[in-house]
Amino acid sequence: MNGPAMRFVQGRVLQICSLLFLLPLFVAVFYGEGLAALKSFGTAAAALALTGSLMTIKRPPRPGLRAREGMVITCLTWLSISLASAAAFMLSGEIPFFVDAFFESVSGFTTTGSTILTNIESMAHYALFWRSFSHFIGGMGVLVFALIITADSSSGSGSLMKAEMPGPSFGKLVSRIRKTAAILYAIYFVMTLLTIILLCLGRMPFFDALIHGLGAAGTGGFSNKTASIGFYQSPYINWVLTLVMILFGVNFQVYFVALRKGIREAVKSEELRWYLGIYLAASLFIGANLIHQGRTAGYAAEHAFFTVSSIMSTTGYATVDFTFWPLFSQVILLLVMMIGASAGSTGGGLKVSRFVVYLKSAREQIFKTRESRQIMSVRMDGQILSDSTLLPLFRYLCLYVFFLLSGTLLLSLDSPDLMTAFSAAATAVNNVGPGLSAVGPASHFGGFTAFTKLVLSLLMLAGRLELLPFLLFFSPRTWRRT
Amino acid sequence: MNGPAMRFVQGRVLQICSLLFLLPLFVAVFYGEGLAALKSFGTAAAALALTGSLMTIKRPPRPGLRAREGMVITCLTWLSISLASAAAFMLSGEIPFFVDAFFESVSGFTTTGSTILTNIESMAHYALFWRSFSHFIGGMGVLVFALIITADSSSGSGSLMKAEMPGPSFGKLVSRIRKTAAILYAIYFVMTLLTIILLCLGRMPFFDALIHGLGAAGTGGFSNKTASIGFYQSPYINWVLTLVMILFGVNFQVYFVALRKGIREAVKSEELRWYLGIYLAASLFIGANLIHQGRTAGYAAEHAFFTVSSIMSTTGYATVDFTFWPLFSQVILLLVMMIGASAGSTGGGLKVSRFVVYLKSAREQIFKTRESRQIMSVRMDGQILSDSTLLPLFRYLCLYVFFLLSGTLLLSLDSPDLMTAFSAAATAVNNVGPGLSAVGPASHFGGFTAFTKLVLSLLMLAGRLELLPFLLFFSPRTWRRT
Repeated sequence: MNGPAMRFVQGRVLQICSLLFLLPLFVAVFYGEGLAALKSFGTAAAALALTGSLMTIKRPPRPGLRAREGMVITCLTWLSISLASAAAFMLSGEIPFFVDAFFESVSGFTTTGSTILTNIESMAHYALFWRSFSHFIGGMGVLVFALIITADSSSGSGSLMKAEMPGPSFGKLVSRIRKTAAILYAIYFVMTLLTIILLCLGRMPFFDALIHGLGAAGTGGFSNKTASIGFYQSPYINWVLTLVMILFGVNFQVYFVALRKGIREAVKSEELRWYLGIYLAASLFIGANLIHQGRTAGYAAEHAFFTVSSIMSTTGYATVDFTFWPLFSQVILLLVMMIGASAGSTGGGLKVSRFVVYLKSAREQIFKTRESRQIMSVRMDGQILSDSTLLPLFRYLCLYVFFLLSGTLLLSLDSPDLMTAFSAAATAVNNVGPGLSAVGPASHFGGFTAFTKLVLSLLMLAGRLELLPFLLFFSPRTWRRT
Repeated sequence: MNGPAMRFVQGRVLQICSLLFLLPLFVAVFYGEGLAALKSFGTAAAALALTGSLMTIKRPPRPGLRAREGMVITCLTWLSISLASAAAFMLSGEIPFFVDAFFESVSGFTTTGSTILTNIESMAHYALFWRSFSHFIGGMGVLVFALIITADSSSGSGSLMKAEMPGPSFGKLVSRIRKTAAILYAIYFVMTLLTIILLCLGRMPFFDALIHGLGAAGTGGFSNKTASIGFYQSPYINWVLTLVMILFGVNFQVYFVALRKGIREAVKSEELRWYLGIYLAASLFIGANLIHQGRTAGYAAEHAFFTVSSIMSTTGYATVDFTFWPLFSQVILLLVMMIGASAGSTGGGLKVSRFVVYLKSAREQIFKTRESRQIMSVRMDGQILSDSTLLPLFRYLCLYVFFLLSGTLLLSLDSPDLMTAFSAAATAVNNVGPGLSAVGPASHFGGFTAFTKLVLSLLMLAGRLELLPFLLFFSPRTWRRT
């Protein structure tokens, strides 16, 4: 590995990240919490800036990074900012214990939104802001953000962007990386701003609208209310967020194409159609199930569409405690949790495009068994997927299933039932937020052992980085000298 | 499709099957239950024989069957004998309702061993014998059995055998099919006989030894005691069955090779080593977990080794109610339930060889990410698996996961919790028998709705036929004229 180049790029990234840690200070000043924020986030920012500067004193003889070096930097960055954020939480006194502070930070940056906090309303404003802002940073990838600001490491940006942008890519969008990234960020900022305005129009206080706007944009899910969105009891807010969450789960390429070639071209995307189709089907099934259970049609529509939007986009906001819904509805929620959002969105999960490939491959196997001599291929957007495209996707499925099952096994040591263990593993790997049973939206993760919280933190990181950079980072062979 | 040839082969198969339905009559005569047995199983045998004879009056102009035609016949045979067996149960008055009788028959032939019976001890001897004998028939495949007896359909036997023999085959054993099948059957018969003798030596009554011998051989799991093997409270019987069950889950190729080339050559099988390794690891983890829960080391060893042997071989006998074990142990049982036994054994599940390929493929993906320029391949028994070997295995994984999850979703309509719904789906698809929570070894499936029992029956059939023949049979395009 090219050590000096990695050190240099890593240093630059930490410098940029240190600037992000200064933002809570402005919020703190506004709410008269300046000193506490300076002591915590000021220190963290200074530490990051100092480390970054020390690492960038000496320019590397050979710049340029390869894919695996990009992956290692990606993983290291996510770990460093999570650790810095955990230190800030501890110094501020808001979250005194390390494992808790680390869990909360990882949950923020990975846009999961699971919390260990028991009394959210008593938190300082700057800390609440930071939690939601970390969703916003994590949503589109802190590294890509750093790369379009800095101009130093252009040679490595392709590797880094590939390691961090979620989902398999079937298009050729990322040709001129920096320009494309800038456009995507503009779309992201505008959509977030619109969300905050729409929430304010529903008489949500500005600070709350900021929190939930940032959280929805990153498909995170942290709220400044223990009852999450259920606190507001407002159908307007519920429907606005239903729409916003599902939109942030759409592949951002679709918006890119819509801007350049018009909406008619954009809605041709096969992944978009599947995504919306699965969303509608899941919502309708749950709605019908709720009506069958004796709920009114109004309740069923409002909360089924909201909850599926929240879970499928992997945001995790809640209007009601769906652990009281019938088991059939809960299993559907588990399924859309695993399918997740679209590739190239801020959401997590397996991604709709992968799911569709698995579905079509299963169908292909039935076809091949029947007509052994004919050729049938899996297509996406009309294009045939070659074996060399399919094989990594299948191997990814193997990895995903192993992560999910190992997670469930480890969490079963500290869970009252299978629903808790499995949904906790699924909610972590897919970066959703709430699980079911003992980890439902009305509960929190504070009561678990330090071991369980650490396992969940690692599952969240692995899920957000789509497993491979994570595995590469923790594989001893990566660090062996060649 | 070659309709006349299919009709003819199907007719021959039904004729052979009708003979099998006569066996309970001998048991009935011995226990003075002749009249009831004649009324039920005698009628079923006559009906099968008559149908078979009518179908074989006219010889087909072109004999010879293709793979998909073999698969359709396989599925149709399993359905016909299950229906005939259900009719016999209903006529005998032992199981009066159709859905129950069909469930019990499918559970028997698919070697699952799940029961809807609430008072097993009150059943007639011939009915109890038939339940376990259906395991024995189903274990090695009724069709292969029929094919080595009849001499008419040699051209189609390859297709049929391929459709019915479980597991992916990496060897070239099945070259001279009929002779090989005869040797495999000889091994099967001798091992079953030895099991019955060993059980008798443990002072198990002869009838009980026969029942449990046939059930262990087919990795079925029906018992003539409500408390299953726990009834005998005998460590000797427990350890004998622990050994026997794990041996019937070994690929029969291993025994074949052992007979021809010696044991040293046989134990080189990579699947065998993984199978035993996973078995040992799972047993030790559960044993440690039980000791940690406060059980004695003796209890832990005896019941952990027995239960893992029973679940991993997909037999399903029980010595204790493991739904009271810690969740960690129960999750391990769920995992070995899904991995299942070896390919080419009488057991069900995903099969160890497939599981190992998935595991190695996941590792390969990590390697490929690190060294993008080097080539690394998945090997089994030292041989590189080509992409064209791997792709169907991956597509099978997609199908398997879809079956498992759809089953869980449908069963959640009628289940108290996720553990019940998921373990019921897993126990059915993998042909194990008992599940966990409300479908544990101390419970039965009698309390479910007819819809749930039908879903479970179809899952059992699909699992035993390894999904594809089942899907082909129920796919409308298969039946379209070309």
